[in-house]
Amino acid sequence: MSADAPLWWDDGALFLIDQTALPHEVRIRRCTSWPDVADAILTLQVRGAPALGVAAAYGLALAARQSGGRPDAVREAAWGLRRTRPTAVNLGWALDHLLRVMDARGQGRLEDRMLAAAHALARADVETNRRMGRHGARLLRPGAAVLTYCNTGMLATAGYGTAFGVLRAAHEQGLGIRVVACETRPVLQGARLTAWELRRYGIPCTLITDNAAGALMRAGDIDAVVVGADRIAANGDVANKVGTYTLAVLADAHRIPFYVAAPTSTIDLNTPDGDGIPIEERDPEEVISVRGVRIAPDGVAVRNPAFDVTPHRLVTAIVTEAGVVRAPYPAGLRAAVAADSTAAGGGA
Amino acid sequence: MSADAPLWWDDGALFLIDQTALPHEVRIRRCTSWPDVADAILTLQVRGAPALGVAAAYGLALAARQSGGRPDAVREAAWGLRRTRPTAVNLGWALDHLLRVMDARGQGRLEDRMLAAAHALARADVETNRRMGRHGARLLRPGAAVLTYCNTGMLATAGYGTAFGVLRAAHEQGLGIRVVACETRPVLQGARLTAWELRRYGIPCTLITDNAAGALMRAGDIDAVVVGADRIAANGDVANKVGTYTLAVLADAHRIPFYVAAPTSTIDLNTPDGDGIPIEERDPEEVISVRGVRIAPDGVAVRNPAFDVTPHRLVTAIVTEAGVVRAPYPAGLRAAVAADSTAAGGGA
Repeated sequence: MSADAPLWWDDGALFLIDQTALPHEVRIRRCTSWPDVADAILTLQVRGAPALGVAAAYGLALAARQSGGRPDAVREAAWGLRRTRPTAVNLGWALDHLLRVMDARGQGRLEDRMLAAAHALARADVETNRRMGRHGARLLRPGAAVLTYCNTGMLATAGYGTAFGVLRAAHEQGLGIRVVACETRPVLQGARLTAWELRRYGIPCTLITDNAAGALMRAGDIDAVVVGADRIAANGDVANKVGTYTLAVLADAHRIPFYVAAPTSTIDLNTPDGDGIPIEERDPEEVISVRGVRIAPDGVAVRNPAFDVTPHRLVTAIVTEAGVVRAPYPAGLRAAVAADSTAAGGGA
Repeated sequence: MSADAPLWWDDGALFLIDQTALPHEVRIRRCTSWPDVADAILTLQVRGAPALGVAAAYGLALAARQSGGRPDAVREAAWGLRRTRPTAVNLGWALDHLLRVMDARGQGRLEDRMLAAAHALARADVETNRRMGRHGARLLRPGAAVLTYCNTGMLATAGYGTAFGVLRAAHEQGLGIRVVACETRPVLQGARLTAWELRRYGIPCTLITDNAAGALMRAGDIDAVVVGADRIAANGDVANKVGTYTLAVLADAHRIPFYVAAPTSTIDLNTPDGDGIPIEERDPEEVISVRGVRIAPDGVAVRNPAFDVTPHRLVTAIVTEAGVVRAPYPAGLRAAVAADSTAAGGGA
């Protein structure tokens, strides 16, 4: 197992930490085909917008390898992987990037070129996160109590984390921050994954139920909120894990800064605003059961939107690897995307 | 088992539905001493502010019976029962009421008078809730989608319910309301108890995680919020299950009316404002486990306030059995308490 990544390539297969078994068991899944990877995505064994992108890229590399470098097989895999999760934009972004690599018809075997592109994507994601962390840490004052949501750590990326990377950079710089982690129902990524990562890196951490965030803010116990994003529209509206919008409204009511940290690959300039972002509705079972234990009467109706949209007016700033973007967002986000394309040589 | 009450007296003992076993098992506990009752309260087998008051009253009746009518034994029981739950005011209110009955030295044996007073308290609570329901139902428009929180149904009272009674009255009047129930972490009273009661009475119901409330409000899917209260200060500040404050902030941001339904016994004129209400911090185990299944890493620090305080400026109206109280709350709440004392002949 890699020390600091949720997925890695070894001996012709993609290995990933099965995140549904954390925090009590570190179980590793070996994927040898793209449907294996699609299944791991669908069952949330791998999750987090940047990690989904990298996993999908390796899925295409597997398709190329298994088909002996047949482009039509790779295209079929891209179609299958794209429809696993509709909200996160990084997944489609990564697939498009690898399809462009395929179509560019470079030197060497297709399967080797696809794998090299997936590796490059994973390396670039870690570097992106480290840069984002350095930019974001400047927004936090020493000793700050920072509330975070869901999991945006190394588990959600190819390594280091997005919003979590901001916390980690602040901690590594000796700022002495304390983190309040919301458990993040229904899948409990905060309780299971973020609390596990915070303890792993020695960052002081307190776990709360999601509904306690308001009381803590009112008591003056929260200095800043830092969350990730699954998709950011051109106007700065942010789709992220359901409950993010509630935190943004609370932060606004208490004049607490609300920061979103996400790589520029999360910015979707083709979606003008949040109304255009599809919101995935997931299995009711996630709500009526917790880790296999039923908590509600049989047959109860459920609504289980996986994400919500936070309007840009509630977002204090968006931290990207290209720097910190503030309102007006349309110009700032366009510039961040352009800067990144230049820095990374037109992709990756 | 009584059809429509969470606790009842039979053959010299207090029987109660063990609410920790719901919704999958209707388990009955028989309490034959006041420490039995105190234990049922501490372990949340009985909960809900009005139900706590009635249970405590029966606890004193048991103390009187077991001691052969010794006032010092009853006083000791009152002391023991009072310290079980610090936030709900009805518990102390009911104990004080029964101690006054004891000190009034009426006719008959003390144990009989105490039991009669407990019975009267239970009957009065149901009547109070029915009156509250009728007042509150007038605030809801036909077809309204009403969000509610925690459990305030018959299980939380001696019968019919407080905020739930408002929903029930509206349903019985044929208003065609639909209820959105928040699951209410950590103890999941909404998922386990409210959803169970709503189905029992045939009221259309959708269950959501607490953190989805904001997204539903933003989508225009919620027309009103109705919650209960554990204590209402003289200025209208409301202590209720943690997460209530978050809902109040969200309702305010979306211009959705936010109603509190609670009997006048919940109004504490001796507490000037919410800052004076003690907030119980409960066992971290409630957060790191769900129904016995661990969801967080070992050793993680937790904050688990059981209640929060909603400032009166976020409360659209307070529904009591004496009528609907609106701002300015100090005069309205004093009048409601006075009206109730008159109506009930100085107590009960």
